[in-house]
Amino acid sequence: MKKILSAAVVFLSLNLFGQTKEDSIQFSRISTEILNKGKSYNELRDLTKNIGHRLSGSEAYEKSVKWAEQKLKEAGADKVWLQEVMIPVWERGKESLKIKAQNGKWKTLKMLSLGNSEGTKGKDVSGEIIMVKSLAEYDKLSPEQVKDKIVFFNYPFSQSYVQTFKAYSDAAVYRSTAAALTAKKGGKFAIVRSLSSAFDDVPHTGAMRYGDSDKIPAVSIGNTTADELELLLKSQKITAKLNSNCGMKGEKLSHSVIGEITGNKDKSVIVVGGHLDSWDVGEGAHDDGAGIVQSIEVLRTFKNLGIKNNHTIRVVCFANEENGVKGGQQYGKTVKENNEKHLFALESDAGGFSPRGIALEMDDDKIKQITSWSPLFLPYGAYDFDGRYSGTDIYPLKDMGIPTAELVPDSQRYFDIHHTEEDTFEKVNRRELLLGATIMTQMIYMIDKNW
Amino acid sequence: MKKILSAAVVFLSLNLFGQTKEDSIQFSRISTEILNKGKSYNELRDLTKNIGHRLSGSEAYEKSVKWAEQKLKEAGADKVWLQEVMIPVWERGKESLKIKAQNGKWKTLKMLSLGNSEGTKGKDVSGEIIMVKSLAEYDKLSPEQVKDKIVFFNYPFSQSYVQTFKAYSDAAVYRSTAAALTAKKGGKFAIVRSLSSAFDDVPHTGAMRYGDSDKIPAVSIGNTTADELELLLKSQKITAKLNSNCGMKGEKLSHSVIGEITGNKDKSVIVVGGHLDSWDVGEGAHDDGAGIVQSIEVLRTFKNLGIKNNHTIRVVCFANEENGVKGGQQYGKTVKENNEKHLFALESDAGGFSPRGIALEMDDDKIKQITSWSPLFLPYGAYDFDGRYSGTDIYPLKDMGIPTAELVPDSQRYFDIHHTEEDTFEKVNRRELLLGATIMTQMIYMIDKNW
Repeated sequence: MKKILSAAVVFLSLNLFGQTKEDSIQFSRISTEILNKGKSYNELRDLTKNIGHRLSGSEAYEKSVKWAEQKLKEAGADKVWLQEVMIPVWERGKESLKIKAQNGKWKTLKMLSLGNSEGTKGKDVSGEIIMVKSLAEYDKLSPEQVKDKIVFFNYPFSQSYVQTFKAYSDAAVYRSTAAALTAKKGGKFAIVRSLSSAFDDVPHTGAMRYGDSDKIPAVSIGNTTADELELLLKSQKITAKLNSNCGMKGEKLSHSVIGEITGNKDKSVIVVGGHLDSWDVGEGAHDDGAGIVQSIEVLRTFKNLGIKNNHTIRVVCFANEENGVKGGQQYGKTVKENNEKHLFALESDAGGFSPRGIALEMDDDKIKQITSWSPLFLPYGAYDFDGRYSGTDIYPLKDMGIPTAELVPDSQRYFDIHHTEEDTFEKVNRRELLLGATIMTQMIYMIDKNW
Repeated sequence: MKKILSAAVVFLSLNLFGQTKEDSIQFSRISTEILNKGKSYNELRDLTKNIGHRLSGSEAYEKSVKWAEQKLKEAGADKVWLQEVMIPVWERGKESLKIKAQNGKWKTLKMLSLGNSEGTKGKDVSGEIIMVKSLAEYDKLSPEQVKDKIVFFNYPFSQSYVQTFKAYSDAAVYRSTAAALTAKKGGKFAIVRSLSSAFDDVPHTGAMRYGDSDKIPAVSIGNTTADELELLLKSQKITAKLNSNCGMKGEKLSHSVIGEITGNKDKSVIVVGGHLDSWDVGEGAHDDGAGIVQSIEVLRTFKNLGIKNNHTIRVVCFANEENGVKGGQQYGKTVKENNEKHLFALESDAGGFSPRGIALEMDDDKIKQITSWSPLFLPYGAYDFDGRYSGTDIYPLKDMGIPTAELVPDSQRYFDIHHTEEDTFEKVNRRELLLGATIMTQMIYMIDKNW
C-alpha cells in the first residue's frame, strides 16, 4: 500500500513540479559531499571544546562571535558582517540550596538557578517547603498558606508523549511562571522539578519570567533529588535555605553574526540559521552549537559543489536566543527597516540528532508544494513535514508573513541533556549531525531553485 | 500533498481492514505502558553490568541463560524452557600485534582477533606487510607476491550510504574472507580495517570463515591505526608481528531460552526474539541485549495490559548468533520436527536505537496488508516498511516459508560501536530502547489480531 502511494506521490510531483530526477541527483551529491567531507562535526568540537558554553553577555559569547565570523569566511561566504544587538546580561555567580528536616542536619542539593532569576544577593533565605503537583493544586492554596513558604512545583515531565517536545511544552509553564506565582501569594522562593526526560540527578536551567510580580528566586532540581524531596515531604516538615548571587546586570551591546552567498538571479534572501548563544552550563553542543555548524555547512556545501544559487543564501547566527531572543528580534526589525525581500527562513534549534523531517509554518499552497517534494527526502530519513511551527529566532520573520521552517531531529535524547552540564560535544554523533545538515541543504536547494 | 495521501491511506485501511480506531487506542495503551512502566532498560542494565559480554561457550553466557529464564518468568510467561543447542566454542586468549619500520622499534597496535580465527598458538609470527585497497587489487597479486607476507586489507567503511547497514554489507566480505584469501596465496596472516563508521581507534571484531583454506589468523585494527599504517606503508617497508592464542575449542551443549504466553484461540506461534550471546568485548548492549529485553517487554506488555492473545506469543532468546547461528538453526529444526505452526517471526538485532520501521520478508499480499497498517505506526515514528530482509536467527524460519521481519532502528550510531569494547549500556538511551519495544509490541498485536 505504502509503496503504491509513494509511487503516486513521485508521479504527481513529476507532473506538477518536474525535474525530479535532476533533483534526486543533486540530493545525492549533497549527501555524499556532507557525509564524507562535511566540516560541521569538527567545527562543533572546536566551538564546544575551545570556547565552551557562551551565555549572552559573557566573554565566551564574544569569542564565539569572532569564531563564527571566521568560520563563515572559511566556508566561502561572499560577505560576512556583525549585526548590533542590545542584549540583556544575566549572571549566575555562586549558589547553593540546602534542606533539613526538623532536628536534622543541612543537606546540600544539586541545583541550578533558573535563567533570568534574581538570587538572594548572597544572603541566606529560608523557609518551610510546601509541595504542589500541579498549577490547579497551587491555585487552591490561599496567600496565608503560601506566605513566607518555599513552593516546590513538583510537576513531572511526561514520558507518555512520543515526541518529547510535547512533554516539554506541557511542563514549561512551571519553569517560566513558578517564581511569579509564588511571589503573588507571598512565598519566598520557588523550586521546580527539572524539565528532564532522564531519570538522573542533573538539574536543567532555562528561562523564566516575572511579569509584574516581585522578583523572588526560582531554582531547578534534578529528577532524583525531586523524587527524594517528594518522599521526605510526605512524612515531615522540611526547611530549605537558598543562597545565590544570580541576577540581571543590565544590558550590553553585542552581535549576531551573518554571512551570505549572493544570489545569481536576484537578491531575495533565504535564511538558514541557529543561535550562537547557550546557557552557562555544559558546552551548548546540541543547543545550539549543532544548529550553528549545520547552517554554516549549508553555505559551504553550495560553494563546494558549485551550485549556482538563484537567491541570496544567508546564514544567521542569532545572538541571545536563550534569555531574550534579542538577536531574532533585531534581525526581523532590520529586515523590515531595510525592506529586504525574504523568501524563506529555516532554523535548526532542536538538537543535532538524526533528522526526521522539517516543520513548516506558511500558507497552505506553499506547504502543499514542499510536501510534494517529500519522496526526494525519504531516502535520507526525512518523512515528517507535518509540524506547523518554526524556530524561535525566526518568529519575527514569520510574523512578517515570511515562510519559516525548522529542522525536526529525533527528539528522544534531547531533554536528557537540554540546558544542563551534560550538553557536551560527546553527546553529538557525527553522522547524525551531518545528516541533519544534509536535509537542511537539500531543502534550501529546493527552495532556492523553485521559489 | 502528503497529508492528503495520508488521509487516503487511513481511509483505505479503515475500509479494507476496519477497526482502525480500536487499534489506534490499543497502540496508545501499549506506548503509554511501555514508555512509563517498561522494564527493559533496567533489565538491560542488569544484563550488561552484572553479566556483561557473553560469548557462546563462556561462563557468562550460561549465566545469561539463567537470567533470561528468570526474566521471562517474571514477565509473566505461561511456560519457560531451555532448548538444547550444540554450539561451537571460540576463545580469544592473550593477543598482541606489533609493527616496526626498518631499523625502528616495535610498536604495539590496538587490535582484536576476528571471531572464529585461529591464532599463532602463542608463537610470534612475523612478516612484511603488503597493503591492498580492494579485492580487485588483491586479485591482481600473484602467489609469489603474497607468499610469507602479511596482507593488510585496507578497504574503508563507506560514509556515503545513509543507511549504515549498506556500508556494512559492502565491506563485510573483507572481514569474512581476508584470512582465506591470504592463505590461498601463501600469506602468513591478514589484517583488516575495522567495519567502523567512527573516526576513532576502536577495533571491531566479528565473524570470519575459512572455507577450505589453511587456517591462518585474521585480526582487525581501528580506523586511526589503519590510517597511520596506510601512511607509513607509502614511504617504507613495515614488518608486523602477531602473537595470539585464539582458536576454536570444539563444541559444547548450551541453550536458547524460550518463554511464551499461550494462545487463547489456537496454539499457532508468533515468535519475537533477539540473540542472547554477544562478542567477548564490551557488554553486548546494543548487540543484542537490546533485542532480548525488548522481546521480553513485548510479552510483559501483553500480560500487563491484559490483551488476550489469539495465538501463542513466544519469546526466543537465541543462542550463538554471533559465531554460528546454531540457536536459530536448532529452533528452525525443532519447529520442523514438531510440525509446529508458525504465523510470523520478528527479530530485533540492529540496536536499541530510535525505531524507524520494520523490514518485512514474506509474500506480497502479506506485505500489502502490513503496510496498510502504517498510518497507525506513524505517530510512533515508524514509517519505513520497505526493507525486504529479516533477522539472522529467523532465517531458518523464513526458509520454511514463514513470514519474518526485523525491527529497523535508526542506523547512524550502530557501526560506531558494533562488536567493540564500546558497546556498553551507557550507549543505549532509555526512551529509544522503549520506543523500539513499543513498535514491536504494536506489530505483534496487529499480527495476532489479524492473522
